[in-house]
Amino acid sequence: MTEQLRAAVIGAGYWGPNLARNFRGSPDWDLVAVCDLDEARARKVVGPRSTVEVMTSVDELLARDDVDAVAIATPARTHAALATAALRAGKHVVVEKPIADGGAAARRMVSLAAEVDRVLMVDHTFCYTAPVMKIRELVASGDLGEVLFVDSVRINLGLVQPDVDVFWDLAPHDLSILDFILPGGLVPTAVAAQGADPLGVGQSCVGYLTLPLPGGAIAHVHVNWLSPTKIRQVVVGGTKRTLVWDDLQPQQRLTVYDRGVDLGRPDADKARVNVSYRLGDAWAPALPEREALGVMVGELAAAIREHRPARTDGHAGLRVLDVLEATSLSLADGGRLTPVSTGAPTTTLEPVA
Amino acid sequence: MTEQLRAAVIGAGYWGPNLARNFRGSPDWDLVAVCDLDEARARKVVGPRSTVEVMTSVDELLARDDVDAVAIATPARTHAALATAALRAGKHVVVEKPIADGGAAARRMVSLAAEVDRVLMVDHTFCYTAPVMKIRELVASGDLGEVLFVDSVRINLGLVQPDVDVFWDLAPHDLSILDFILPGGLVPTAVAAQGADPLGVGQSCVGYLTLPLPGGAIAHVHVNWLSPTKIRQVVVGGTKRTLVWDDLQPQQRLTVYDRGVDLGRPDADKARVNVSYRLGDAWAPALPEREALGVMVGELAAAIREHRPARTDGHAGLRVLDVLEATSLSLADGGRLTPVSTGAPTTTLEPVA
Amino acid sequence: MTEQLRAAVIGAGYWGPNLARNFRGSPDWDLVAVCDLDEARARKVVGPRSTVEVMTSVDELLARDDVDAVAIATPARTHAALATAALRAGKHVVVEKPIADGGAAARRMVSLAAEVDRVLMVDHTFCYTAPVMKIRELVASGDLGEVLFVDSVRINLGLVQPDVDVFWDLAPHDLSILDFILPGGLVPTAVAAQGADPLGVGQSCVGYLTLPLPGGAIAHVHVNWLSPTKIRQVVVGGTKRTLVWDDLQPQQRLTVYDRGVDLGRPDADKARVNVSYRLGDAWAPALPEREALGVMVGELAAAIREHRPARTDGHAGLRVLDVLEATSLSLADGGRLTPVSTGAPTTTLEPVA
Amino acid sequence: MTEQLRAAVIGAGYWGPNLARNFRGSPDWDLVAVCDLDEARARKVVGPRSTVEVMTSVDELLARDDVDAVAIATPARTHAALATAALRAGKHVVVEKPIADGGAAARRMVSLAAEVDRVLMVDHTFCYTAPVMKIRELVASGDLGEVLFVDSVRINLGLVQPDVDVFWDLAPHDLSILDFILPGGLVPTAVAAQGADPLGVGQSCVGYLTLPLPGGAIAHVHVNWLSPTKIRQVVVGGTKRTLVWDDLQPQQRLTVYDRGVDLGRPDADKARVNVSYRLGDAWAPALPEREALGVMVGELAAAIREHRPARTDGHAGLRVLDVLEATSLSLADGGRLTPVSTGAPTTTLEPVA
Repeated sequence: MTEQLRAAVIGAGYWGPNLARNFRGSPDWDLVAVCDLDEARARKVVGPRSTVEVMTSVDELLARDDVDAVAIATPARTHAALATAALRAGKHVVVEKPIADGGAAARRMVSLAAEVDRVLMVDHTFCYTAPVMKIRELVASGDLGEVLFVDSVRINLGLVQPDVDVFWDLAPHDLSILDFILPGGLVPTAVAAQGADPLGVGQSCVGYLTLPLPGGAIAHVHVNWLSPTKIRQVVVGGTKRTLVWDDLQPQQRLTVYDRGVDLGRPDADKARVNVSYRLGDAWAPALPEREALGVMVGELAAAIREHRPARTDGHAGLRVLDVLEATSLSLADGGRLTPVSTGAPTTTLEPVA
Repeated sequence: MTEQLRAAVIGAGYWGPNLARNFRGSPDWDLVAVCDLDEARARKVVGPRSTVEVMTSVDELLARDDVDAVAIATPARTHAALATAALRAGKHVVVEKPIADGGAAARRMVSLAAEVDRVLMVDHTFCYTAPVMKIRELVASGDLGEVLFVDSVRINLGLVQPDVDVFWDLAPHDLSILDFILPGGLVPTAVAAQGADPLGVGQSCVGYLTLPLPGGAIAHVHVNWLSPTKIRQVVVGGTKRTLVWDDLQPQQRLTVYDRGVDLGRPDADKARVNVSYRLGDAWAPALPEREALGVMVGELAAAIREHRPARTDGHAGLRVLDVLEATSLSLADGGRLTPVSTGAPTTTLEPVA
Repeated sequence: MTEQLRAAVIGAGYWGPNLARNFRGSPDWDLVAVCDLDEARARKVVGPRSTVEVMTSVDELLARDDVDAVAIATPARTHAALATAALRAGKHVVVEKPIADGGAAARRMVSLAAEVDRVLMVDHTFCYTAPVMKIRELVASGDLGEVLFVDSVRINLGLVQPDVDVFWDLAPHDLSILDFILPGGLVPTAVAAQGADPLGVGQSCVGYLTLPLPGGAIAHVHVNWLSPTKIRQVVVGGTKRTLVWDDLQPQQRLTVYDRGVDLGRPDADKARVNVSYRLGDAWAPALPEREALGVMVGELAAAIREHRPARTDGHAGLRVLDVLEATSLSLADGGRLTPVSTGAPTTTLEPVA
Repeated sequence: MTEQLRAAVIGAGYWGPNLARNFRGSPDWDLVAVCDLDEARARKVVGPRSTVEVMTSVDELLARDDVDAVAIATPARTHAALATAALRAGKHVVVEKPIADGGAAARRMVSLAAEVDRVLMVDHTFCYTAPVMKIRELVASGDLGEVLFVDSVRINLGLVQPDVDVFWDLAPHDLSILDFILPGGLVPTAVAAQGADPLGVGQSCVGYLTLPLPGGAIAHVHVNWLSPTKIRQVVVGGTKRTLVWDDLQPQQRLTVYDRGVDLGRPDADKARVNVSYRLGDAWAPALPEREALGVMVGELAAAIREHRPARTDGHAGLRVLDVLEATSLSLADGGRLTPVSTGAPTTTLEPVA
């Protein structure tokens, strides 16, 4: 058996415990330490009768020789500094979404990872769920035909946060899914966003995001903090088939309708296009029941061992971030279609130690 | 028992047969005639062993003394002319949605109906369904609290039509529902619309409509022709409760979640608003199973007898039409927020015969 | 076009109006008359502006020359007398379920129909629904493999009736479905029944029926009057696939799970059978939306024209009745397995007029 | 904070790992050791970087002073011997269902626990799920009225086992739930069972169990190994309301229908009972999301600390076992109603060491 890689988790808040549990349960990984400024919180993640170490200093953690990779589960505004330090210390890095709180910082992270030849992965967890992996497969294989539209709804219990609106909090999930399933990744030319803050909390709590896609297709995201009633639904309409992913139906999360829209020849006289519908059966692929984070930590190990980018690498994180930044601009501009910057990762200016 | 009123249906195409069936089944009405240029089509609606008359001339129909009201189920571009003629002939009128194909014509219809003192009703069928009537009641009673957002999805088998886009075809349903359930009716100040035509048929087949509402609330409509997979879902989020209407779950169309968002006092130090969630039970009101069109023809009879406007009268039709016209303008302007004109009905210039 | 056949409906109570509506809507039929002792009730079925005749005398109805077939929708205890009179008058007959209130009478009806060479059909409506027709097809084609078990649940709003228990009221539906879908029809050797009357109304309101089937398979029926909450679910387990019919999910009534039980070779040492499971995709066949009664009246017309037995003929009615009679015997005997009599139809002793 | 109790798990097969995980995660417990004849299997349960001990000798485990309670997750035929040894060693015991493989042995276990004054609990896990606890509450409070029927369906992936039929494998779940929710516990006078073995594996793979309850009510259980398609549904019909528990609908596991059956006065003339239905709203109580096993280990700790019987104590295990034994007798006797023995726990004959 391959020797295990050694991991540490930085941040013992909301998501850190899930990362720790999955590193511990993975045959690929040995969880060495959990690090948090709040020692008691870190100790609670480690649990009783355990020899996993509890640390409170990131510097000490990064100085250790027996840690191959760190998982960063801290607030977004700290991602860039922590990831940069970890990469410079020679660690592979997986960072929570969004990759950073600004495109410039994110570009430097991506460049640095390339320079130091370390894996930089973003924990786009949904891309490791069985439904999303199956959707990607169905799109790639052409089973759905050309993608005509993607509609994603995420109505969710969300804590209203002081410095993050609903777009920055929830839309990274939808955008990372789009990035993962669309044939060319998430490369919209522009974004239009509309938001609402009906409670007067100071930022958008309901948000709508429209992304024109190449070839006339369209993607749309509805994110919503104001309803404790969960809805998580994605519809992918293709020329051949239509797919519905309802994540709250565990017995049948994914349904593929063998129904589509057929485009006939334009009718010469009436200058109209003949469109007809095919009505066929529905099909619900069997999906394995695996915890997505378990698959994610497996992918991190594989990327390190095979010396290749992870499936949701820094560039993926960057594409998602670019859309988020354009979203904020569109929102400030009355919802106007706003171009998405797609610059290459910036070369790091600062010399790497 | 009250004497029956006498109705005739004009137009024996897609919707006319439904109107005819409901007039026939109603204790309030006697269906006298069905009128269509295509006599065989009208005869098919009337059916065998029936003494309901088949007519091919609207003029002859409107000249009859034994007809109190006509239902107009013809293409939208013919509504204004037919309704005008009928009103001038002293008939009460119910017209299919949208009320007309332009706001000016619709304003003249509304004015004319007032002048000749006849009922002018728009067949906003969904407003007569049990779920929508219950939603209106729950909003009006304050059970949901203040409305924070309304999200309406209508993914539907839709025939791509030569002269109508998906907004004009499907959104009248959603807009008429909004007009019916919102406390002050549908009076958005502006509209932003995004559409897509990924098949290149010449008009939007997927459409998204955002309507900022008074007080910071927001309404959003997603209409979509490109998926034969039906989704019909409306979420109404209130400060006290959240309501989900899933019209494809006949056992439980309406669910009211006793969950909401509580706004605490702003935290002085951190300059943030405390928002907390209440998680409570869900409640599914029992709904009567009645055909909406049957309720609609009953309302038409009641409005005529009680000499009052029908619940979905010409003004309601006008409010819907105004939003549709602003939608087209926004669409042509890259999705920019576009004001909704809300002028009063124009006085008819032409003398009434 | 073929000339229409002429029908009359006897009985204007609960089911008669549905039959009348379907005869009127069918291209195969001309509904000539509706007959009921209560003239007003019959007139209400016929409706306004109609030339369909209203009659109150069965004798006069049967004496008419312009009636080819009668549909009998009266209480079960009157079926035998009415059907006998109609057959003797040369009419084809479709009778509501159960075919009669006793096996002897039913056998005479079947024999008489053969003698007078007229179609005798039982309105096993469910056998004309799209799901049941598809299930029959899937069983017959071998797609499910050998049938291992059938489990049918019918929890329903049921009026507690003075002279009929829940088995006689509801189980005919389930038994007629079993008769229709099982390869050899409904031919159990025995029946075991358990019932309960927790409200003390004098007869079983909750009933369970077990039917051992040839080859070790088993069918089970749960009928229940005491819950206004509807459940209508049938599971058919086969060696290859398992099918679930949930009639309250109109979007997906039928789901076929490509999952089954594989039987390995017996393990010599441990004297046990190796059984393994295959987990595969699910498949929901598209089903046409047609009213079952419309299909039923079409089958009646086809049987008459093609001079062949109807799909749910008198023998099918007899097989269902035989099980019902054995059910009553088992119930009276503490639930013991009770043989089902399967005698041939009795030759009618009385001379046919 | 109260000092933690110390637990050990015996058996590292299918269920043992779940017990171990929950003891580890509980603030009430310190998991000291996991014991299995197969050391590697036990070690896998303990996992890496842990100081929980791995043992292979039950005797050594029971001889330890630092273990307060043991959880026995071994095959049913070993329960009696292991539990007896543990109780004699002064340990509290929780044992998997069924409590033992025979009533005599189980009675001795219950008596012994009383003699040595130790808690003997049966892991009727479902009784610690949120839906079952809520159902018990609704029955006890009278919200459902008098219970008229309980119908439980458990169609499940089940491994066909050499020495256990589907009744002994799955029905303990349903019977323990009945025992928990019925006001007087599970005390049927008799049981009727029907089974089928259509694959010829040597024992029933499909089973139906009918239990007449006091007052004319009835309970029914359907257990089924032959379908990998899961169905887990319980209906509780009461005089006031009807409750449906669908465990595969995580968004709404429990629905209470405010509908019932009203019994009017007997109609003097027609000698029939008037029964009418009330149709009201449905209500879905919010249920906490907790792992049932976590609640179970908490109850074990509370019972020990408060020196009281656990909620699902040995007597509950005994009542379930008595029904299982009568089930086997009924099955062997063609499904005849068979009395359930309800003898008191036998005094242990063997002297306690």
